[in-house]
Amino acid sequence: MLQNNLTELLHINYPIIQAPMAGGITTTKLVTEVSNAGGLGMIGAGYMTPDKMRAQIREVKQVSSDSFGVNLFIPGEFHVTEEELNRANTILHPIFEELNVQVNRPDRLPNQQDQINIFKEQVHVLIEEKVPVCSFTFGIPSEDVIASLKAAGVTLIGTATTVREAIENEKAGMDIVVVQGSEAGGHRGGFNKEEGENLIGLMALIPQVADRVTVPVVAAGGIMDGRGVVASLCLGAKGVQMGTAFLTCEESGAKEIYKEAILKTGEDQTVLTRSFSGKLARGINNRFITAMQEHEIDLPDFPVQNALTQYIRKTAGAQNNPDYMSLWSGQSPRLAKRATASELIKKIVEEAKNVTFGS
Amino acid sequence: MLQNNLTELLHINYPIIQAPMAGGITTTKLVTEVSNAGGLGMIGAGYMTPDKMRAQIREVKQVSSDSFGVNLFIPGEFHVTEEELNRANTILHPIFEELNVQVNRPDRLPNQQDQINIFKEQVHVLIEEKVPVCSFTFGIPSEDVIASLKAAGVTLIGTATTVREAIENEKAGMDIVVVQGSEAGGHRGGFNKEEGENLIGLMALIPQVADRVTVPVVAAGGIMDGRGVVASLCLGAKGVQMGTAFLTCEESGAKEIYKEAILKTGEDQTVLTRSFSGKLARGINNRFITAMQEHEIDLPDFPVQNALTQYIRKTAGAQNNPDYMSLWSGQSPRLAKRATASELIKKIVEEAKNVTFGS
Repeated sequence: MLQNNLTELLHINYPIIQAPMAGGITTTKLVTEVSNAGGLGMIGAGYMTPDKMRAQIREVKQVSSDSFGVNLFIPGEFHVTEEELNRANTILHPIFEELNVQVNRPDRLPNQQDQINIFKEQVHVLIEEKVPVCSFTFGIPSEDVIASLKAAGVTLIGTATTVREAIENEKAGMDIVVVQGSEAGGHRGGFNKEEGENLIGLMALIPQVADRVTVPVVAAGGIMDGRGVVASLCLGAKGVQMGTAFLTCEESGAKEIYKEAILKTGEDQTVLTRSFSGKLARGINNRFITAMQEHEIDLPDFPVQNALTQYIRKTAGAQNNPDYMSLWSGQSPRLAKRATASELIKKIVEEAKNVTFGS
Repeated sequence: MLQNNLTELLHINYPIIQAPMAGGITTTKLVTEVSNAGGLGMIGAGYMTPDKMRAQIREVKQVSSDSFGVNLFIPGEFHVTEEELNRANTILHPIFEELNVQVNRPDRLPNQQDQINIFKEQVHVLIEEKVPVCSFTFGIPSEDVIASLKAAGVTLIGTATTVREAIENEKAGMDIVVVQGSEAGGHRGGFNKEEGENLIGLMALIPQVADRVTVPVVAAGGIMDGRGVVASLCLGAKGVQMGTAFLTCEESGAKEIYKEAILKTGEDQTVLTRSFSGKLARGINNRFITAMQEHEIDLPDFPVQNALTQYIRKTAGAQNNPDYMSLWSGQSPRLAKRATASELIKKIVEEAKNVTFGS
């Protein structure tokens, strides 16, 4: 009963996509276990160099012959002045001191042309390595990129946070669109910032998008179990993408202290913050976010702020200090569990069969 | 298939509650038509005097013998200084001028003791008039009030925006708890403001609450059709409360221009604002909200700001000028339709039967 045009397109048994979380969470073990269990495992390659990405793709292909996907970030425009950098470093300085961070300036700041070149190389690797599925966050790739990926037979997934973004993704040729509800953990994946609110809850977002696009819609945000999967399908989605639910799985690369933080968090303890990367993202509130709150509007654009805070996050991680780590989480941490990816998927499929309404 | 312990408790055929929208929307015609069609019609009495409330309750009882409910606001603490009042009036002054508002100062400002007295009288009326169902927003009534209502056989519904608020409602003796997702239009109905986020999407909020309370959970926020009803039930709710969906119905007391505004609005055009009442509420963005944005943190508390803006809203309404009206709406305005309340309920029940997942 869970098979549909999405599972057909992606060559999977169950309409469950493991969200391509960046930052080392999507280990080869996680990706392949998800795919082996009948879902779609995805490599979060947004921050990866093309070489590192190629290495993991090859690893995944060696371990498993199942379908899998890779997520890329669309490079956006950003501007940063010397003054903004100095101010940001002044704001961060007390935290460098407190954590005794050894290196506190990145060798090189992100540069727009570099980002564009890296993206081109990443796309090249996807084609060379015959990756079956590719998803995009923070934008829609150019016509050329889409054409070359399609010619190579790659199934393309776009990300939308509004009806308009979903329509734009479909028009551009995406085969599938992930709609990210306001419940979602991690970065907001949308791209139209000019006007309007892009924090739409899935109960509202799914049916309004499903009414306006013909490609399969995948729901993302706060979905953790069979109830969320079936509810998403009832609302008009053809499948779900789950991040936090897979993050606490045994195979995920998240640090143990990060998993523990999610497992003991309430649904009202996540916040939206620009403090870690310069781009809005949902995570568990902690000292870093609180300390940066008053500076939110002054922070450098993504990915510059991300580069500036990288050694804070690294050092805090090495010190097992959750106060200064980016603890991305969706709004359903109370539903997170310790399990293997395969146990999680089995449980969801079982639950989905038994979801009832009425008495 | 839609009958359950909620429909039993409320003596209704379908688990559909018409949200008790305040400000003249819940006409006797709307309330009785919803109840006649098998849902629960509710009078939004939050801003009503006890006399006006009694008059409408009697009218409802005269027209229909079906079950119905009344919603009351729990009076909260508020403080306002002469300085704050002057600042607020200075901020509002250009708008009074622009709209040529005749009366621009309320005869009397809301006073905390008055509010408490009014609430007591409202409760008294409910008991005298043997109202079958009463719901509360902005808090939980005192033990005494709960005991006297229960002794009179009134079924009690609390409002929660977080798991903690839902648990507190159950502990206090509420028979049912409405969970208000971040998608919801109008005022945020919660009451714990000390810490934590209370803008949780329903996809996350329903299952996390359903796991922790034993009373029936009713989902509110962005639900407009059979898809939303069935999805809510799959997530663990026993029913839904719909505001915006009933607001555009023929029988609603909303001005025609307000209904039109909703019918032509996108899902990304609502915003959260304190500008109209001093309390956070979701409505369609307009000139008033935009003009007040920079003053949001300086505005007097609810209900003082509400009193200060009343003549702006009234005058704008009389002038059919949506720029300065409070156009409360949830995040699914694209699903709003023109219909009678009975057509809407029939359609939802029909849709709910046909909601499928799979292919």
